[in-house]
Amino acid sequence: MTKARAGVLSTPHGKIQTPFFMPVGTQGTVKTLSPEDLLAIGTQIILANTYHLYLRPGDGIIREAGGLHRFTGWSLPILTDSGGFQVFSLAELRKITNEGVKFQSHLDGSYHLFTPEIVVDIQRNLGTDIMMVLDECASYPCSYEDALKANNRTLHWAERSLIRYRETEPPHGKNQALFGIVQGSTYEPLRRVSAERLIELELDGYAIGGLAVGEPKSVMSEMTAFCTDLLPADKPRYLMGVGKPEDIVEAVSLGVDMFDCVIPTRNGRNGTVFTWQGRLVVKNRQYERDFSPISEGCSCYTCRHFSRAYLRHLFHAEEILGLRLASIHNLYFYIELIRKARQAILNESFDTWRKTFYHQYHIENNHS
Amino acid sequence: MTKARAGVLSTPHGKIQTPFFMPVGTQGTVKTLSPEDLLAIGTQIILANTYHLYLRPGDGIIREAGGLHRFTGWSLPILTDSGGFQVFSLAELRKITNEGVKFQSHLDGSYHLFTPEIVVDIQRNLGTDIMMVLDECASYPCSYEDALKANNRTLHWAERSLIRYRETEPPHGKNQALFGIVQGSTYEPLRRVSAERLIELELDGYAIGGLAVGEPKSVMSEMTAFCTDLLPADKPRYLMGVGKPEDIVEAVSLGVDMFDCVIPTRNGRNGTVFTWQGRLVVKNRQYERDFSPISEGCSCYTCRHFSRAYLRHLFHAEEILGLRLASIHNLYFYIELIRKARQAILNESFDTWRKTFYHQYHIENNHS
Repeated sequence: MTKARAGVLSTPHGKIQTPFFMPVGTQGTVKTLSPEDLLAIGTQIILANTYHLYLRPGDGIIREAGGLHRFTGWSLPILTDSGGFQVFSLAELRKITNEGVKFQSHLDGSYHLFTPEIVVDIQRNLGTDIMMVLDECASYPCSYEDALKANNRTLHWAERSLIRYRETEPPHGKNQALFGIVQGSTYEPLRRVSAERLIELELDGYAIGGLAVGEPKSVMSEMTAFCTDLLPADKPRYLMGVGKPEDIVEAVSLGVDMFDCVIPTRNGRNGTVFTWQGRLVVKNRQYERDFSPISEGCSCYTCRHFSRAYLRHLFHAEEILGLRLASIHNLYFYIELIRKARQAILNESFDTWRKTFYHQYHIENNHS
Repeated sequence: MTKARAGVLSTPHGKIQTPFFMPVGTQGTVKTLSPEDLLAIGTQIILANTYHLYLRPGDGIIREAGGLHRFTGWSLPILTDSGGFQVFSLAELRKITNEGVKFQSHLDGSYHLFTPEIVVDIQRNLGTDIMMVLDECASYPCSYEDALKANNRTLHWAERSLIRYRETEPPHGKNQALFGIVQGSTYEPLRRVSAERLIELELDGYAIGGLAVGEPKSVMSEMTAFCTDLLPADKPRYLMGVGKPEDIVEAVSLGVDMFDCVIPTRNGRNGTVFTWQGRLVVKNRQYERDFSPISEGCSCYTCRHFSRAYLRHLFHAEEILGLRLASIHNLYFYIELIRKARQAILNESFDTWRKTFYHQYHIENNHS
């Protein structure tokens, strides 16, 4: 019996049909693409990174510009992560205390402090539709003791985030939502405590964090299912940083509504593109004289106008257009994948659709 | 008294209003831009390079694809240069004889031969609307003896090109024009011989080659004026590789119809953008909090949606979108410049318009 669900999430910058995929626009731009490209693909919402924008150009400049929407020319909803994950994965010499996390910028080595309050303030300046609380993402594998400590800190930080959120007004006049992040590594008791405590805080939505960090697929599925069983039915659920097409289909079946991942854009820039039969490396020799589109029947700009042979040429000639055309196709594929999943949910045929998808789609064991 | 003129050039892929500017699409793509971007800018025709496309992906593949238009998704006219200039500027170990020029690929060191006949054959495979004859471009400065030798060879090659052109059919079904190139370095007697001999051949149009290769501005103007006085009024005139906005305005006043240059796209990728007051380096610190568009009142996609501050951010964050937005603006500026010149010609107010342009536009002595 599927837990897949379809709905609508309302934000000040528009309604979003759930489930949905968010292209990643780390530095205030989805790499290689313009807002016009993203709209043509059918993008409903993008994700931007608090950590990166805070460091460069600085949230002060973005606030002066009138917020991130005005600054970047993107008029539909934006979600910002809290920067927690980036501090732990990118920054140097970080020192974590209950107060917050001190870190050195990966850009110039300068020292900075993120507290739950500061991270809310930064996202207020950005004016994004959905803000995330600062969390501590435990690495994998992680001992129960370390996971417990990180979990308690994350819950403490969520409470402080909410207090700051309630004390402050959106500077750009449009309401901003605040989402919590369920942590607890691979330990069900910790996941339960995390979810239950966050639910008591009555946040606007709930993310499932700390997954897709190296654990086996089965663990990711189990933890996701465990969390979606606990989370309230009337709030959006967001599985952070996931993932491959097959992972997204799986998570939709477990009742997840929201996704973000760099895979479609990063793979695109590497010359790897998605089809309903699986991935293909369009740079490869075998496509030198292949004048068919990446994916037969695909309606994206790339497939309507260009062949595999031309894409291959652009990659070999190191032409930037190749990176963009592959990114357009891959994001279109992801958005179309979720759109099809949603349609199947509405038609009450999701399980059949999912089986057909898995049947056609060649799943590789190891790809990034 | 101005010699500026406005007209229409008909090709199998559409009519082009003259004078016009051709964005440079060396490898079968105008760097960072899609065909859709180019159409939105108002591009009427693009230029592609025979030398580059012959080496990669190879004119055989492009012929199989149905020609360069089909291969690249660009449906308006394309002009291809002959590759002569690239052989002399990029290739290694070239050896020139009356037969043709032997050279080593700048990509992999492989050996190749370009003859006038081979270069026509390659351009037939590409199926471009306007083909150029193989020429020998004398460097600057050049002795009279060397210039004479190069000139005689270029004329000999033009005759052979025309013979091959007449012997062959366009493989993609659409007529292809053949243009000659007036050489002769800075020597008026040689320029005269070159022009007169090429005119006898009754080619479809005439380029002025061997300028913008380091000679003083005054010499470029004098040579251009000398050539346009000799060339027939009923054939298009093309000043190859020119140039800066002020050079184009000058050449239009001398009766030139066609231009190509990498400046708008190359400068754009370096973060330098054009305004009616002159160039500005949008990467500079002074634009950090400048939320105005590159050029007030400009209708290009970039200026309608993005600020100098955002462009600066994209360049500093090394985001590809910055390269593209600056290229879009600069090409729009060039095409708008020539469109305004054309309108002034039609209004019989070109001299006034030109004076106003020079009055507003800050001309730098040394920029590339």
